[in-house]
Amino acid sequence: MLSKIPVLDNPTSADRVAAIQRPSKSAADLREVVGTVYKAVQEQGDQALIDFTSRYDGVELISLKLSQSAISSALDQLDHELRQAIDIAYKNIKSFHESQHLAAEKIETSPGVSCWRENRAIEAVGLYIPGGTAPLFSTALMLGVPAQIAGCDRVIMCSPPNQSGILHPAIVYAASLCGIDEIYTVGGSQAIAAMTIGTETIPRVHKIFGPGNQYVTAAKIMAQDYQVAIDLPAGPSEVLVYADADASPDYIAADLLSQAEHGVDSQVVLVSTSTEIFGKVQQCLDRQLSALPRHEIARQAMANSRFVCFSDSGEAFEFINEYAPEHLIILSDQYESYIPLIKNAGSVFLGHHTPESAGDYASGTNHTLPTAGYAKSYSGVSLDSFVKKITFQHITKDGLLNLGPHIVTMAKAERLDGHANAVTVRMNEIEKL
Amino acid sequence: MLSKIPVLDNPTSADRVAAIQRPSKSAADLREVVGTVYKAVQEQGDQALIDFTSRYDGVELISLKLSQSAISSALDQLDHELRQAIDIAYKNIKSFHESQHLAAEKIETSPGVSCWRENRAIEAVGLYIPGGTAPLFSTALMLGVPAQIAGCDRVIMCSPPNQSGILHPAIVYAASLCGIDEIYTVGGSQAIAAMTIGTETIPRVHKIFGPGNQYVTAAKIMAQDYQVAIDLPAGPSEVLVYADADASPDYIAADLLSQAEHGVDSQVVLVSTSTEIFGKVQQCLDRQLSALPRHEIARQAMANSRFVCFSDSGEAFEFINEYAPEHLIILSDQYESYIPLIKNAGSVFLGHHTPESAGDYASGTNHTLPTAGYAKSYSGVSLDSFVKKITFQHITKDGLLNLGPHIVTMAKAERLDGHANAVTVRMNEIEKL
Repeated sequence: MLSKIPVLDNPTSADRVAAIQRPSKSAADLREVVGTVYKAVQEQGDQALIDFTSRYDGVELISLKLSQSAISSALDQLDHELRQAIDIAYKNIKSFHESQHLAAEKIETSPGVSCWRENRAIEAVGLYIPGGTAPLFSTALMLGVPAQIAGCDRVIMCSPPNQSGILHPAIVYAASLCGIDEIYTVGGSQAIAAMTIGTETIPRVHKIFGPGNQYVTAAKIMAQDYQVAIDLPAGPSEVLVYADADASPDYIAADLLSQAEHGVDSQVVLVSTSTEIFGKVQQCLDRQLSALPRHEIARQAMANSRFVCFSDSGEAFEFINEYAPEHLIILSDQYESYIPLIKNAGSVFLGHHTPESAGDYASGTNHTLPTAGYAKSYSGVSLDSFVKKITFQHITKDGLLNLGPHIVTMAKAERLDGHANAVTVRMNEIEKL
Repeated sequence: MLSKIPVLDNPTSADRVAAIQRPSKSAADLREVVGTVYKAVQEQGDQALIDFTSRYDGVELISLKLSQSAISSALDQLDHELRQAIDIAYKNIKSFHESQHLAAEKIETSPGVSCWRENRAIEAVGLYIPGGTAPLFSTALMLGVPAQIAGCDRVIMCSPPNQSGILHPAIVYAASLCGIDEIYTVGGSQAIAAMTIGTETIPRVHKIFGPGNQYVTAAKIMAQDYQVAIDLPAGPSEVLVYADADASPDYIAADLLSQAEHGVDSQVVLVSTSTEIFGKVQQCLDRQLSALPRHEIARQAMANSRFVCFSDSGEAFEFINEYAPEHLIILSDQYESYIPLIKNAGSVFLGHHTPESAGDYASGTNHTLPTAGYAKSYSGVSLDSFVKKITFQHITKDGLLNLGPHIVTMAKAERLDGHANAVTVRMNEIEKL
């Protein structure tokens, strides 16, 4: 039995500030612990990875890299139904991320002055796939597919080994669909340190992607000190469900629980303008919860959940934007009318038949999204995350004669005469002709 | 007279590793200093800003915010020619950044499953405009224009005051063109701390943009600990010039010096396959250098510059990609043939009449670019930097009946039965109808 979740009714500003708080980030506190891991990897390379894996995963690795025969035998073991589901998810994720490949437009900003952008794949990327209680092959797809479409030269994957020192067949299959055959059975902050610094076996990459526990997150933040980019500062997963009176309490409860089962620190919020709905949802939660294998985790996460009631939807969406949820589910017939009100969210699920699970696995959108309010300034992972956009420009002689004097004026006003000189030395030469 | 710059001839791998090194980043070392500034701003708010400004800028501020009358009088004082130049730069920067506004495409990844992305402006952004030896109004344009196009609700600007406690008229004018009237006369790491934490007068923002000295950079890195995003980790500016035998040594020298005058830590590299060119450039450098007001700064920066010769252009571009320059100038008749070889660069200037100064001021491209090798993983500032791309999806009943079973299979394989339940509870309901 779930204890009754109190409803915050038309919260004041102060209450709202409290209601948007996430559990305090401890990444900064972990700097020292993770610094020790970095130091060990820097000094001992592969041996440090083998030692950490023995200590934390209880596995004595013979090789850090998954062998070709281990890959083949994993692929042979994959359940047929699961393979088919992964194939469909792969196709949908590929379609959606391919649609993000937008052609560069070359424009003439002034006569003779052409400017444009071109995409270039990040050459070496590292994908981290967490282990723990479940084999997160879906994350392998979510990171591997855009890396494949972007055309990154080198894509490596790190994931903690299971008790046999290998990876779940589904992770290996997802990687192989994405053309990744460089897979290392290393997890935790040591995997991040290895991809940041490089060891004898694991190469240094330019950008690291993927979720993980607080140590992994702290290690990713530290990677930035070594000039390695990261996808997102990640925190515990979260969902905010907005439900109108026409929403099914059963669907609401199922969506809240699907988030709550992730971990005890998962964030679950229900917002509605319908005062009646909260009680009904509570009943459905009680009924559904007991049927879940991970009910104990979900129960603890639900204890920290929030039910918030507003008298009108405008105020509700102001609160939602302040909260800036990773996942926003809108259970309403009139979901379209709410789209313009959404300012901050990672990914939005519209209507009664669009559960978050669809986006987590197979609809095509990415599930690597900003948490903890980062949706105010960050986008989720997309094809853009795997490319740089380089600006190019070309100026004709006439173009420079035309624009040059203004550049000179501005450069001199900034007291940068060398900048002016780079223009005048050319203008003088052109005028001599 | 500039001392002779040695030419690194067909460097070995080890030499190349040394040649791509930048001055070591000291941002991490400054954590403690900047931490003190954050603490003071957190505890004393505005008063800390007033005290720091008195101590470091030698100015006693009466008000942190530039008054409407100070803005008006600054606008009255602006030189006509400079105003005209800024107008033209504004127009070009606007054209180029508007072309980056690409329409979202809605796609159906599976029958009944629609996915798309929508842009939303970051609501509150802070632009930092450095002071120091020159009024960098061009940076105000480079950050203000995309913020304006993106439609950010609140755009604030911080810049250190001059001796009269106000800002250069050109900065104020650039801000006003971009619709920014919330300008604070605060600089240094204290300005970044104020925009990160918020004070009585200066609001907390969601993302901070702009270059600065090493304290400003360290303060921006620290802002991330407070869940505030930043544009780029910035370092000293740099240029790499690639010159073929048809390049003018005078143009090369002018381009190298325009970078060298930025600061003694500026990075300047010349790469060529023509062995003759280096000596000629050295002569031109000597001649041009003495004419520059900032010749002492440029001389010191040139002392750390690198001339590198390769026997073929393929190898040269391999080195260039390893270096990953902020600015890459290609002085060659056949510049087009080199474009596909470019993998890592911030902004590229093509042909004999496209000096970097054009992009620094007025051609339309952005001058806020990745330095120190970050071009391997980061793009420069663009319209994208001021928006989030939120993914949306909608699934029909038939779409869910179709895709749902695969989602259930995947969720169960990841042992997330709650995720499966959010699908089956809906499928059961639909099938009942």
